[in-house]
Amino acid sequence: MEGKTRDALRLRRVAIDTYKENVAYLHRDCQVYRSEGFQALSKVEISGEAGGQSVLAVLNVVDDASITDPGQLGLSQEAFQQLGLAEGAAATVAHAKPPTSLHAVHRKIAGERLSYADYEAITRDIVQHRYAKIEMAAFLVACSETGIERDEVLHLTRAMATGGEQLDWREPLVADKHCIGGIPGNRTSMLVVPIVAAHGMFIPKTSSRAITSPAGTADTMEVLARVELPPDQLHEIVRTQRGCLAWGGTARLAPVDDILISVERPLSLDSPGQLVASILAKKLAAGATHLLIDIPMGPTAKVRSQADALRLRKLFEFVGDRVGLQLEVVITDGQQPIGRGIGPVLEARDVMQVLENDPEQPRDLREKALQLAGRILEFDPDVRGGRGYTLARDILESGRALEKMRAIIDAQGAGDIARKVGGLCNTIHAERDGSIAAIDNQQMARIARLAGAPMDKGAGVDLYKKIGDKVRRSEPLYAIHAEFAADFAFACELAAHNSGFALTP
Amino acid sequence: MEGKTRDALRLRRVAIDTYKENVAYLHRDCQVYRSEGFQALSKVEISGEAGGQSVLAVLNVVDDASITDPGQLGLSQEAFQQLGLAEGAAATVAHAKPPTSLHAVHRKIAGERLSYADYEAITRDIVQHRYAKIEMAAFLVACSETGIERDEVLHLTRAMATGGEQLDWREPLVADKHCIGGIPGNRTSMLVVPIVAAHGMFIPKTSSRAITSPAGTADTMEVLARVELPPDQLHEIVRTQRGCLAWGGTARLAPVDDILISVERPLSLDSPGQLVASILAKKLAAGATHLLIDIPMGPTAKVRSQADALRLRKLFEFVGDRVGLQLEVVITDGQQPIGRGIGPVLEARDVMQVLENDPEQPRDLREKALQLAGRILEFDPDVRGGRGYTLARDILESGRALEKMRAIIDAQGAGDIARKVGGLCNTIHAERDGSIAAIDNQQMARIARLAGAPMDKGAGVDLYKKIGDKVRRSEPLYAIHAEFAADFAFACELAAHNSGFALTP
Repeated sequence: MEGKTRDALRLRRVAIDTYKENVAYLHRDCQVYRSEGFQALSKVEISGEAGGQSVLAVLNVVDDASITDPGQLGLSQEAFQQLGLAEGAAATVAHAKPPTSLHAVHRKIAGERLSYADYEAITRDIVQHRYAKIEMAAFLVACSETGIERDEVLHLTRAMATGGEQLDWREPLVADKHCIGGIPGNRTSMLVVPIVAAHGMFIPKTSSRAITSPAGTADTMEVLARVELPPDQLHEIVRTQRGCLAWGGTARLAPVDDILISVERPLSLDSPGQLVASILAKKLAAGATHLLIDIPMGPTAKVRSQADALRLRKLFEFVGDRVGLQLEVVITDGQQPIGRGIGPVLEARDVMQVLENDPEQPRDLREKALQLAGRILEFDPDVRGGRGYTLARDILESGRALEKMRAIIDAQGAGDIARKVGGLCNTIHAERDGSIAAIDNQQMARIARLAGAPMDKGAGVDLYKKIGDKVRRSEPLYAIHAEFAADFAFACELAAHNSGFALTP
Repeated sequence: MEGKTRDALRLRRVAIDTYKENVAYLHRDCQVYRSEGFQALSKVEISGEAGGQSVLAVLNVVDDASITDPGQLGLSQEAFQQLGLAEGAAATVAHAKPPTSLHAVHRKIAGERLSYADYEAITRDIVQHRYAKIEMAAFLVACSETGIERDEVLHLTRAMATGGEQLDWREPLVADKHCIGGIPGNRTSMLVVPIVAAHGMFIPKTSSRAITSPAGTADTMEVLARVELPPDQLHEIVRTQRGCLAWGGTARLAPVDDILISVERPLSLDSPGQLVASILAKKLAAGATHLLIDIPMGPTAKVRSQADALRLRKLFEFVGDRVGLQLEVVITDGQQPIGRGIGPVLEARDVMQVLENDPEQPRDLREKALQLAGRILEFDPDVRGGRGYTLARDILESGRALEKMRAIIDAQGAGDIARKVGGLCNTIHAERDGSIAAIDNQQMARIARLAGAPMDKGAGVDLYKKIGDKVRRSEPLYAIHAEFAADFAFACELAAHNSGFALTP
């Protein structure tokens, strides 16, 4: 009995960022650790002595009292924040009960079809951080590819959408667009939003930052304006301008998605069911009523065959119809990057050239943006079917889109980001005469990322040639821009090894 | 360019035990962290500047220079050990390439059947710590239950068995036994080994410690003798005694199993395919030629129906035949705990009572041990079919089994563990007259664990009644023993809430 107590431990914030996975630290000599028979990586539940919110965490065992001493209970940064208590506060730790919805995950693993109630319970437990990473991985794998019926994708979408904040704009038509990604330079949102908003249609577009790509719309827009805005200000801008181009923030809308992504991404899990549920849940929670989905298709795109693209489209349509979204899905040309620039500053330049009707503008970016904007404009009952494209072109050519973009930039506030292209530059040349047969989206993205994009705004790749262009030996194919020597060297090395360009034989 | 270098970092051992998951710590201001665009939870590969072995780890980002400063690369304890360099040594960190065998895992997730080469590549990458936990979870779920064909279980078994050290005893008949677990008090190995070895049959039995149960054979044997023995000494004992009862150690034989268990256990994944591959791979690597498998069946056992038990038996037989094991599978009564004691000291008492032919001995434990020992003795070509049981009984009743047990204890060395039953004791009584209809294996295990077993050797449960016994109101059903007051209180509370016993109506 002696020396063995259930006394509370003193809470300590351990300055380690464990990203979406809560970690608790107990010293190996901590009496509670020893008496509870915890194991490292056990899941534990931490509560304040005074009651209140409890948090779940994975246990790491510490042998260094300067990190966590035997009388302390250490918490990684996010876990400490979630618990919301002060350092030194009394806290207790106990074995965490596995979340009850894990039974449903086990039934899914066993091949059963789950109900809406099951998906609702699973997503709720995930949002409450009751799932460990491996439990999320188990759930995701069990409902990937072969494992999930389209009815279940619908259940999952609804459960994800209602699991957090939900916006209601009190507008009859709230337009939005989404591209499933994978094509460098594909910054159509920054053209579609000003065109559509200039028409007066309501399009409160929020975007993500790049996760695995060299630039997200939020990264690129940030070259021109502030993108991290408080919700109140953002709503005011949308009310006034009918549109915005802001960072979507995280964890408010469909928060389960952000948590699942922390497992999906490292696992490269991107099954159609999860993709559809993730996108539609976010859009539903964001209050969209009309949505255009862009599925680029090509040999180095995410979707590589017409059959896959069609299957994905039908799944979007099935779920979209049932959750009450007016949905259009377009399958677009994804065989090469769109526009010339890859990287925030270079892509912002392309966008502004199109808005300014600059003769140097990248025609493919302009063309694709007009196609997409046209389809969205046709959501307006007053726009005749087939007239959207012409209307979009008129808005662009008249300068009204540019004017709207300037108004949005003014409203969001000019940023303090340098707009300069990276000062280190290297040009990659054609090795022989020929014409461009293929450009590898993934390789170009890799080179741009190694060069420093999106963190270094001016870094990236500037394309001089596109598929079908004829080139002579030693003619420039593209330039690599970087801000730092080490990044520059790595990017050049990768490009020398594989330029990403293929010439016709 | 300024201040941004690719210089090596100085290695630091961070005294955190992250149990089978390597973690690397980089300070948020570390130049390498910033320039590489790592994210927390990225998988990174760490190499010494001087070359040699590299290790993979998950990245945590540190904001406290006293844990890891911006010029350092911190490693959790096991990772530091794996890298095998001194503190302060120069090391570099880079994005880890995903293991190539992950492609096979993705094919499995997509529903494909994998080849032996696939399983071999997967298990090799896992043993080399190239898989993150979530990747192992993905693999395990993809091949659980519905996902894996019996041919694939065979591939997986072979791949696991050959992925580490393999013992060759140079004996024509190496007997072994294994129980799939789940029944408290089921310490038959400690009887079977002395009986079989007394017959002269070679049975180098190594056992595990409890993972989720109140006692493993190694925990219980430790009450009587040392169980952690250097391999050389263990081999010498087996040569001399024809048997042993030692802890199997970890990570030498079929090491992939120990790594996978760190994910299977918290996920409660125990699909038949994984169970069979895990058990047979360990036994193959341990050099067994003849193996008896015990599948207890009952409403609170691991296997709950005759159909499931038969399906599992056939899978054992299918794989066992093809890997060249002489295999017998027996389905036993698993409707209640075996013997009286639950917990190391109490179970050791039961075992010694049987060996000593004590009139107080638990008859069910004796009976089951004789049945199993009899089946193993019949592996001997000189033992007539059906005569094994009688032979086993003769060996037990003649005292030869006790003599062999004493010789094994002498050879392994008496331990320094106190053999006393925990001093705190509480008796649970029948609430009314009746007879015992059921005893819940899982609830009894929970109560014994809460009381302190297996860490506190003397803690546990001592059963006074078994199924079919008649009881009067207030008659004792069982006693709870504990060494520490807090454990004792928790165990008594749980038993008061649900005693684990059901009476006939």
